[in-house]
Amino acid sequence: MSATEKAKTAVVGASGYSGEELVRLLLAHPRVELTAVTSRQYAGQTLAEVFPRFAGQSLTFTEPNPAALAEAAEVVFLALPHGVAAEFAQPLLEAGRTIIDLSADFRLNDAAVYKEFYDGAHPAPALLAEAVYGMPELHRDALRDARLIAAPGCYPTSVLLPIVPLLRAGLIKSTGIIADSLSGVSGAGRNVSADFLYAECNESLRPYGVPKHRHLSEIEQELTGAANTNVTLQFTPHLVPVTRGILTTLYLAPTESFMTETEEAAIAEKISACYAAAYENEPFIRLLPEGALPDTKHVAHTNYLDLAWRLDRRTGRLIVMSAIDNLVKGASGQAVQCLNVLKGWEETTGLI
Amino acid sequence: MSATEKAKTAVVGASGYSGEELVRLLLAHPRVELTAVTSRQYAGQTLAEVFPRFAGQSLTFTEPNPAALAEAAEVVFLALPHGVAAEFAQPLLEAGRTIIDLSADFRLNDAAVYKEFYDGAHPAPALLAEAVYGMPELHRDALRDARLIAAPGCYPTSVLLPIVPLLRAGLIKSTGIIADSLSGVSGAGRNVSADFLYAECNESLRPYGVPKHRHLSEIEQELTGAANTNVTLQFTPHLVPVTRGILTTLYLAPTESFMTETEEAAIAEKISACYAAAYENEPFIRLLPEGALPDTKHVAHTNYLDLAWRLDRRTGRLIVMSAIDNLVKGASGQAVQCLNVLKGWEETTGLI
Amino acid sequence: MSATEKAKTAVVGASGYSGEELVRLLLAHPRVELTAVTSRQYAGQTLAEVFPRFAGQSLTFTEPNPAALAEAAEVVFLALPHGVAAEFAQPLLEAGRTIIDLSADFRLNDAAVYKEFYDGAHPAPALLAEAVYGMPELHRDALRDARLIAAPGCYPTSVLLPIVPLLRAGLIKSTGIIADSLSGVSGAGRNVSADFLYAECNESLRPYGVPKHRHLSEIEQELTGAANTNVTLQFTPHLVPVTRGILTTLYLAPTESFMTETEEAAIAEKISACYAAAYENEPFIRLLPEGALPDTKHVAHTNYLDLAWRLDRRTGRLIVMSAIDNLVKGASGQAVQCLNVLKGWEETTGLI
Amino acid sequence: MSATEKAKTAVVGASGYSGEELVRLLLAHPRVELTAVTSRQYAGQTLAEVFPRFAGQSLTFTEPNPAALAEAAEVVFLALPHGVAAEFAQPLLEAGRTIIDLSADFRLNDAAVYKEFYDGAHPAPALLAEAVYGMPELHRDALRDARLIAAPGCYPTSVLLPIVPLLRAGLIKSTGIIADSLSGVSGAGRNVSADFLYAECNESLRPYGVPKHRHLSEIEQELTGAANTNVTLQFTPHLVPVTRGILTTLYLAPTESFMTETEEAAIAEKISACYAAAYENEPFIRLLPEGALPDTKHVAHTNYLDLAWRLDRRTGRLIVMSAIDNLVKGASGQAVQCLNVLKGWEETTGLI
Repeated sequence: MSATEKAKTAVVGASGYSGEELVRLLLAHPRVELTAVTSRQYAGQTLAEVFPRFAGQSLTFTEPNPAALAEAAEVVFLALPHGVAAEFAQPLLEAGRTIIDLSADFRLNDAAVYKEFYDGAHPAPALLAEAVYGMPELHRDALRDARLIAAPGCYPTSVLLPIVPLLRAGLIKSTGIIADSLSGVSGAGRNVSADFLYAECNESLRPYGVPKHRHLSEIEQELTGAANTNVTLQFTPHLVPVTRGILTTLYLAPTESFMTETEEAAIAEKISACYAAAYENEPFIRLLPEGALPDTKHVAHTNYLDLAWRLDRRTGRLIVMSAIDNLVKGASGQAVQCLNVLKGWEETTGLI
Repeated sequence: MSATEKAKTAVVGASGYSGEELVRLLLAHPRVELTAVTSRQYAGQTLAEVFPRFAGQSLTFTEPNPAALAEAAEVVFLALPHGVAAEFAQPLLEAGRTIIDLSADFRLNDAAVYKEFYDGAHPAPALLAEAVYGMPELHRDALRDARLIAAPGCYPTSVLLPIVPLLRAGLIKSTGIIADSLSGVSGAGRNVSADFLYAECNESLRPYGVPKHRHLSEIEQELTGAANTNVTLQFTPHLVPVTRGILTTLYLAPTESFMTETEEAAIAEKISACYAAAYENEPFIRLLPEGALPDTKHVAHTNYLDLAWRLDRRTGRLIVMSAIDNLVKGASGQAVQCLNVLKGWEETTGLI
Repeated sequence: MSATEKAKTAVVGASGYSGEELVRLLLAHPRVELTAVTSRQYAGQTLAEVFPRFAGQSLTFTEPNPAALAEAAEVVFLALPHGVAAEFAQPLLEAGRTIIDLSADFRLNDAAVYKEFYDGAHPAPALLAEAVYGMPELHRDALRDARLIAAPGCYPTSVLLPIVPLLRAGLIKSTGIIADSLSGVSGAGRNVSADFLYAECNESLRPYGVPKHRHLSEIEQELTGAANTNVTLQFTPHLVPVTRGILTTLYLAPTESFMTETEEAAIAEKISACYAAAYENEPFIRLLPEGALPDTKHVAHTNYLDLAWRLDRRTGRLIVMSAIDNLVKGASGQAVQCLNVLKGWEETTGLI
Repeated sequence: MSATEKAKTAVVGASGYSGEELVRLLLAHPRVELTAVTSRQYAGQTLAEVFPRFAGQSLTFTEPNPAALAEAAEVVFLALPHGVAAEFAQPLLEAGRTIIDLSADFRLNDAAVYKEFYDGAHPAPALLAEAVYGMPELHRDALRDARLIAAPGCYPTSVLLPIVPLLRAGLIKSTGIIADSLSGVSGAGRNVSADFLYAECNESLRPYGVPKHRHLSEIEQELTGAANTNVTLQFTPHLVPVTRGILTTLYLAPTESFMTETEEAAIAEKISACYAAAYENEPFIRLLPEGALPDTKHVAHTNYLDLAWRLDRRTGRLIVMSAIDNLVKGASGQAVQCLNVLKGWEETTGLI
């Protein structure tokens, strides 16, 4: 492909919020041509009719069809509910296409864990071994040659990026980890349910999915990989009235105790060095300066994850806080970042 | 006082959000006459000019003056910033009036702890011994004869009511307790600061005061009392875009481990019995039915605290969640509840 | 009925937002006993299960049945979709019960207008002549003996109360009237549609129903009655991201022109006198003091309508602005106010 | 300047919301280098410290100084309060720099009108004749050679673009025009006032500045120019709880009456043709397809104005509705669009 040629891409299931965001990103991406968007519900309507934000765009939704998609695109994004993505992944892979799947279908290595958390047998277990978990900061090398990329969930992104370097470095215990997360309502997708009506969400703060949310499965898998020992997580999601954003507060225990100011300073230095080594050259991770704490409004509509931490000598804990846009770094932006890695482009191409 | 006579009350510092809510409750209270509202800033203006919500009310703000207040009221509510309440408490107590203070000035028993958390010497340490912490569910008897009541902070209310019965019953460990709280913006008071502008708070999720928020001091004092041993708490407040509401998620460790379903059921029964014993006759605490989780919108504008809990056998933890309206059960409603206890009235009088 | 006996009431179709608000008001009403709440969808579930806000209440939803309702209550509130209310009104009236209907079914005198605006033949045209439009400020006398009360729509309440006195007094022209209204999302009811999802309404401002919204029909009917001549209205509703509230801005033309300051002052005096005569003794209409403009947050959760006006000498127009809570004065509160009138109770009983 | 050389620009007064948005746009603009940002309040702090959204950017705020600015940039944007911009415009123009001013200082041709609406003598009346009103759709030619560009206000943008083509074509009357506008809170700037606190704006709908808002002056000036006769406007702004967005509803009277369907169709065709002629090639104006109405969420964070209209045969009026992002098309985006015109670049460069 010459420098000026664009990579043809398609989005299957483009009518949810992640799909819409993905379309927005791909339309603006300088190295990409978006050749097809599919939607069973909206087939025959133009993109602009369904999403007035895209007024002026001429693409029309089509019925999803693997053969047509294989014709239209070299990289196909799947923004489908879990359980359905596999139907498209299989024929498209056979046709030699690359898949970037935003569903949960290929995030887990183990079909048994999938069954436990997603209430059903895995639809294509043979593909699990090949799929690469699409978090460039943790699996960049594997992504370069991937044929099947499983873009991570939004909560897992906000939890894993802060914890994995600390676990790998042995700076925190692998036990007793707690993740307390707040999510904007777009995280529920364009899900027409009374629970997500404006008048039910506005002026409402509520936990849900306690204590065993589905995203636990992929978080524990990746933490277990990082720690080289089995990790069990406490995870509590909350629904809060913003459209976009996830704010995660992590309660961690440093492996070394710190009772004195000097001990605290020593641990602080190690944590600081660990994060710097892991992330200071990462284009989408911002280690906040001293005194600052993350705020989702500073990452909204961007692919950044903002991170800050505090040691608490009174309790012996390390508190790490992260903020992302659930639809960008938590879904579609990260998927595009994976595409950039895959194609060997500058990783920030088409992203801010 | 005959059944038809009303108790004269005054509110000092009535121009903040807690003061406004208190005025609303006292104006509607069938046993109370509100005889004076003071505000340095608004002296001379009518209540209705300052708070258009009270259009039609004829009260006028006056300069706060202890002698005039002692004349006007038998019970004086202080809705002043910490450090200032003591100035009024002292002369009013000497004049034989009863004080219900909404600030932090009289919540702590120990002037040294006050100094550590509130950056200054306590203005009236001699009064600390006499003050009663104004949480009827925990200190009802002491409130009946109190002359000086310290109404609790909003976060402490949401944290203490769920934990204290468990600690008293020895059902949870006194160590490792974590409270993760979300608060609406009215919790910051009518504080004209850029941080609380609409465009800074809307679509924003952010932790703050990490790791040592002032409210820790009164929470730890009360937990220590309940546990009969020193309790240190991890507490993380977050600012989220609602006007009213606090949602607190508590991470607790049962004293007994539970590895099997049977063990879990046994502990569940004990917790259930403990909460029932403590709260099933409390008019303002609602133990949610199985399957339900608290949501601040269901307690907004009421004096209720809603409570639910879950055991997690995967992690061995007990998760307890509570929801209150920070301005009602978290401040002014609880102060009125204290008044009702003090006067021997039905505890729900003038409250919903 | 003795002073202590309570009037038995029932709510049919109590599962929408207006129904929920009506239940809230009736449960707190000192002269009323709520004996039945019906809901096809929730029959068999308790009130508290469906509306966690009512935790602790023991009522259970039943299937709606006219005979059972006639047994249970002397006054039956219908909070049903238009077209359905008539099914219940007829048998209940025959059984001698009084009906307060919150739907549009009995608001119009003319079945032909109903058909034009509501897309279907009227289900019970014979009852139209008897129904009284339930706006106490305009039809108090007729309400005292009514058997069938049609509680007004939310937009009509916000439009009619400001205009009718001016029209009756001949102070404004009956032509060229424009009503521009903003409504909170609860105005759409608990309507599970993608349009009303949080992520679609948050950060969204949009007109809808332009130029011929259904509420036009009852507004024009009442304005025509007040003006004694046919009135045609321009009405533009907008959906804005609040849960509760309607703010209406009215563009009116005084019958006399005012080019000088003196002429303006003369007209201002007449308008002021007109509103004072109409409303200064009304318990739920607040004529705001000079300099103040209405704000829905000051009427939220109350039965008040706040009103202010300005003359504009540059354009020769009179601008009148009103604010109400769409679920209270715009629906359920006004229905309870009608009940109070009907029963001869103090009109503010059970309302604030 | 070669194709690869970038134009040096500076932003004076970059600490408000418009300034922040302008910085965001200029940092991402492929033809521009942002060489200086000034702020009296924040001089010495980095851009990232003041606006955490720009974490990673290395620019530092400096004290505003005309000589230094003339050195640093060829085009200087002024994002200052009205009355202050002139201080910088004068010396920078003398130094041969081009000015794009976002304040109201140079929008009016007539210093007397400025005095009437802005309460003070104009600080630099000699410059008024030279200033070009920065609305490319209306004044593109004049902008190409401008030295001093006055970027329009947010409300005026939402009002003028829909009306001017109709007035120029003689399709509507120049009398009786009404503009009813809703604005998000960022329109008030980063103004630390109690009126704009979260808890005052959330769940609040309120008119303000009735009946003579400052923006009337520039709207009437431009409409008068378009109509070739004096135009007086009725304009009512409302503050509503969104961060970004202006939704304007315009009430207009077609010059020809339309009583029949055929007459209506004829007028509709003329209006349609008029808008098409004016705007179908404009990159930032979207004439919505039949059936669609504008919604601010579809233009948020973009430079688009979305426009729809309806004829109402019942009232004889034309209703036109527009939506913009007040900080982009209503301020900083439009300023960048002006820069693109001025420099002869593709007009969409650096904008979406």
